[in-house]
Amino acid sequence: MDLLLNNIEQRVSLTTKDKKTISEKFRKKSFKRKEVIVEAGEISKHMYFVTKGCLRAFYTDKNGFEHVVNFAVEDWWIGDFGFHDQSAATLTIETLENSEVLYIDKNGMDSLYEEVSVLDRYFRIILQKALEAQFQRIMQINSFSAEERYVAFSKKYPQFDKRIPQKYLASYLGITPEFLSRLKKDLLKH
Amino acid sequence: MDLLLNNIEQRVSLTTKDKKTISEKFRKKSFKRKEVIVEAGEISKHMYFVTKGCLRAFYTDKNGFEHVVNFAVEDWWIGDFGFHDQSAATLTIETLENSEVLYIDKNGMDSLYEEVSVLDRYFRIILQKALEAQFQRIMQINSFSAEERYVAFSKKYPQFDKRIPQKYLASYLGITPEFLSRLKKDLLKH
Repeated sequence: MDLLLNNIEQRVSLTTKDKKTISEKFRKKSFKRKEVIVEAGEISKHMYFVTKGCLRAFYTDKNGFEHVVNFAVEDWWIGDFGFHDQSAATLTIETLENSEVLYIDKNGMDSLYEEVSVLDRYFRIILQKALEAQFQRIMQINSFSAEERYVAFSKKYPQFDKRIPQKYLASYLGITPEFLSRLKKDLLKH
Repeated sequence: MDLLLNNIEQRVSLTTKDKKTISEKFRKKSFKRKEVIVEAGEISKHMYFVTKGCLRAFYTDKNGFEHVVNFAVEDWWIGDFGFHDQSAATLTIETLENSEVLYIDKNGMDSLYEEVSVLDRYFRIILQKALEAQFQRIMQINSFSAEERYVAFSKKYPQFDKRIPQKYLASYLGITPEFLSRLKKDLLKH
């Protein structure tokens, strides 16, 4: 829980009472590697804050190909947008390592926004960053070479590069795993 | 200004004092058709709320192709993400019709968040919707046929379909203008 409270306090100030309220609303859960915690098509019941491990969020296109849109490690949020109106998830979220999360349901989140109003600001800032990151990812796929994209990613998210299976990183970058592997070898030579 | 205040009041409650504060922070500006109001590479100084007209936001890829990522008409926000940390814009924003906007700079926005704290909630909700819309757009490009995408768009945004030049709508949908034109003719036959 300290990890979550620290994360929030990096953006907004919390009183002791706020911290207590937040701590009471979240539940803790552990997952083994390769467990699906949100399934596309099912109601998106929870938002997750990762305290240990690594997860990916992806969708499957009309040809059956998976497209990774997000990773999350410790100190990151992950969830599907259906959460906000309790509709069906469009993303599937799966653990890539044994993982631990704090999670909250929609009622919990709604009452949290009422009781700890600085959380509106906290999530406003988190969402600004998430939206910018998504824009950058999409623009880079069209504007940067695969090599430039990989270098930008490993610079921005050094914590991901070593942990994430290469096929998922390739999917996130919009390239084939073979191409990513060749690219990393070429970069090592320089 | 009423349009903006009404838009905000659809999501959060404002006091008379809040409304006065908000009204004082925004400036009004008119643009002719085809004016660039934010230029990629320049500091992204303002956020815009459209009160009249129609605009598009796009970026130019490494091959010189423009990709439209957003439209805005009356009652919509538009801006570049560089606004939040006053960095260079990645998007270019251009009017498609003679347009009127309310705009605010970073200092104005920061003081507005301090003085009218429900705006954190308001923008948190706006950002949730914007992030979801971007995800849906990207997923639809990979998962839906061009026809399905066009039908989904014209259903979701009936106010855009007639107003937006077809080449920009095609770019937003990720197809060629010729293909969009053929597709609309085919749909009319059914």
